[in-house]
Amino acid sequence: MTSFPELLLKGKKAKDAAYFLGNLSSQVKDKALEAMAFELEAKQEAILAANALDVEAARQKGLSKALLDRLLLTPKRIEEMAEGLMAVVCLPDPIGEMTHQCRRPNGLDVGRIRVPLGVVGIIYEARPNVTVDAAGLCLKTGNAVLLRGGSEAIRSNLAITQVIASAAEEAGVPAGAIQTLETTDREAAQQMMRMNEFLDVLIPRGGAGLIQSVLKNSTVPVIETGVGNCHIYVDYCADLQMAENIVINAKTQRPGVCNAMETLLVHKNVAGKFLPQVARRLLQLDVELRGCPRSVALIPGIQEATDEDYATEFLDLILAVKVVDTFEEALEHIRFYGTGHSEAIITNDYQRARNFTRRVDAAAVYVNASTRFTDGFQFGLGAEIGISTQKLHARGPMGLNELTTVKHVCYGSGQVRE
Amino acid sequence: MTSFPELLLKGKKAKDAAYFLGNLSSQVKDKALEAMAFELEAKQEAILAANALDVEAARQKGLSKALLDRLLLTPKRIEEMAEGLMAVVCLPDPIGEMTHQCRRPNGLDVGRIRVPLGVVGIIYEARPNVTVDAAGLCLKTGNAVLLRGGSEAIRSNLAITQVIASAAEEAGVPAGAIQTLETTDREAAQQMMRMNEFLDVLIPRGGAGLIQSVLKNSTVPVIETGVGNCHIYVDYCADLQMAENIVINAKTQRPGVCNAMETLLVHKNVAGKFLPQVARRLLQLDVELRGCPRSVALIPGIQEATDEDYATEFLDLILAVKVVDTFEEALEHIRFYGTGHSEAIITNDYQRARNFTRRVDAAAVYVNASTRFTDGFQFGLGAEIGISTQKLHARGPMGLNELTTVKHVCYGSGQVRE
Repeated sequence: MTSFPELLLKGKKAKDAAYFLGNLSSQVKDKALEAMAFELEAKQEAILAANALDVEAARQKGLSKALLDRLLLTPKRIEEMAEGLMAVVCLPDPIGEMTHQCRRPNGLDVGRIRVPLGVVGIIYEARPNVTVDAAGLCLKTGNAVLLRGGSEAIRSNLAITQVIASAAEEAGVPAGAIQTLETTDREAAQQMMRMNEFLDVLIPRGGAGLIQSVLKNSTVPVIETGVGNCHIYVDYCADLQMAENIVINAKTQRPGVCNAMETLLVHKNVAGKFLPQVARRLLQLDVELRGCPRSVALIPGIQEATDEDYATEFLDLILAVKVVDTFEEALEHIRFYGTGHSEAIITNDYQRARNFTRRVDAAAVYVNASTRFTDGFQFGLGAEIGISTQKLHARGPMGLNELTTVKHVCYGSGQVRE
Repeated sequence: MTSFPELLLKGKKAKDAAYFLGNLSSQVKDKALEAMAFELEAKQEAILAANALDVEAARQKGLSKALLDRLLLTPKRIEEMAEGLMAVVCLPDPIGEMTHQCRRPNGLDVGRIRVPLGVVGIIYEARPNVTVDAAGLCLKTGNAVLLRGGSEAIRSNLAITQVIASAAEEAGVPAGAIQTLETTDREAAQQMMRMNEFLDVLIPRGGAGLIQSVLKNSTVPVIETGVGNCHIYVDYCADLQMAENIVINAKTQRPGVCNAMETLLVHKNVAGKFLPQVARRLLQLDVELRGCPRSVALIPGIQEATDEDYATEFLDLILAVKVVDTFEEALEHIRFYGTGHSEAIITNDYQRARNFTRRVDAAAVYVNASTRFTDGFQFGLGAEIGISTQKLHARGPMGLNELTTVKHVCYGSGQVRE
């Protein structure tokens, strides 16, 4: 395997920076975030010029329109990135918070204090705004960040990093706190996934392929983000008008995101009334429906759903539909096909509402609300570095606290172990 | 790679059990723990007989005396294991605790509720008591456990599992909640490390070799436990009598454990007075000292320490010693050689005490106390499944809470995303 000196160099620099970042005052960090926001807008010409080169190259390579749009920067988008940094300034600094302290019988005071993770690695795809987001959240929490973006956005990412890292440094942040890798080689990413001596955690952000590759190859602890095969179950005791609004919202308000609904489950008792009515609106909104035989009978002309459909996160205006005989069947379907992201029940029945929230194993379970709320801002965290679909460390939307760990601080007066 | 049907079978069974375990009442779980404790003692003959076979085989294979002792079970030790289970009964059940709830501006109530991790895999070495400990703590927290012990203890582990799993099942715990793998094949362990579809977390317990192997090979999220190259720094403002007691305790009270001190750092201003005095007591207690040139000059006859010595977790009556010129040099030494487990300063200087606790990056940092307190019981957790030396999910002693994760439960009245 080739070794990339850039990685070792930047890894070491990040580790060194992290040693000092953890004790940087909130004042210095916030001043740096403000300077980063200011400079992003002040130096946008250089960033837009670099981005134009990326976009042109991507166009020539034949990237899809959706990907080109994700890649494109505009003055408006740069302004939004700057505003994002200013929003982070306003959040309370979690570092130094004592989350628990107790006095042991021998007089030893044992406290748990919130400290940064250290060095956070981010592997992501073609969205340059992730560069700014991740850098801002990591700086606020006293972590050094090592960014590895996709090759399509490399010029944009390096131009952004140049601007924000210099601004941070001038404000008193140690060099090495914010770094982007210049090499976008796949083997370099593989090497990064094994840099346990420099990285404390790796957060992949992107499609299922990227995340699976990181999960399979990384020896650095990973926080798995993103895949959401989300269900809404419409119970026979549901307010059907409410159910309709929620279904429309969860499928169509922004279909390309992980908390959008992918499968609609409907109890047989209400399917005859509910499905034709909701289908009409969905079809009007250009949603393609794929249903079980009973759904197809109720919504003439739609395609029959395969097992594959029920297992797919479409991230598109496509919805799988299934009529279920019982509440238990809905639970079993979710258990079998769900990815543990966001699941909802629409019902007015107390017992099934309670059972659903207790028995469905997911990062977020909803009663009578859209799955689209699984989001750091919507949950009130004030920020989001991603949505964890694993169970260790963080589950669901990750805000500033999820970028921290704890240290036990023990104050004694000569205690020894008996 | 060979595939082991036993793993898939038991993995699936564990996953199925976990689905029900999360909603088992505390009453049932505690009754089961009591039954397990009772049956362990009632059926100890079968366990002791199996253990005798393990011990005999190990003796013939020429296992060291220390390992044989770890493997050996006696009626007294079985009684202790049963007492351990009864102690877990007395702990509060963490499952179902709402750790945070807020009402969002749109009226959605978002709460975080504590739930089990799911299926916990434990890979461990020749200590049969881990089987009971881990099973008890996992059951209390509603997790299914899949145990993979060392080949030396396989008969003992299977006999123990047979007894406790039956007792639990009779008390209403789903089958599959407590299982031990019969195959102790290395390849089976490798396969277990990649059973992401069945395991939510893997906790290795044993020596550095085992832990490194799991870290390098597992795709299942791992909690790293154990390695502790712990330091005590005796400052020039230390109470030297206190320092001596703490050093003796941290090195000799139980040298084979991860929170024992491995290197003693002494400020040059007090080295002349402190080192000869503490060395006398350490040598009397059969501690072998390895020192820097200045230490050797003060403690005639001791061996010179190598870089290797400073990097080694001896887990034995061996202590590396170094005289440092400054507080900063002590910090740098700890930063370079430390493993982030437990580090202590002995001083009466406020500023250095504060700086030490802020700047040393470890699971536990101490002022004027022995490093030996880094332990779930000593920290008041009431239990311990291991000591995490990583930063994700858990850091330091892990008790019941560290065997849980959260689920976001959202109660709405028709909320949709704007």
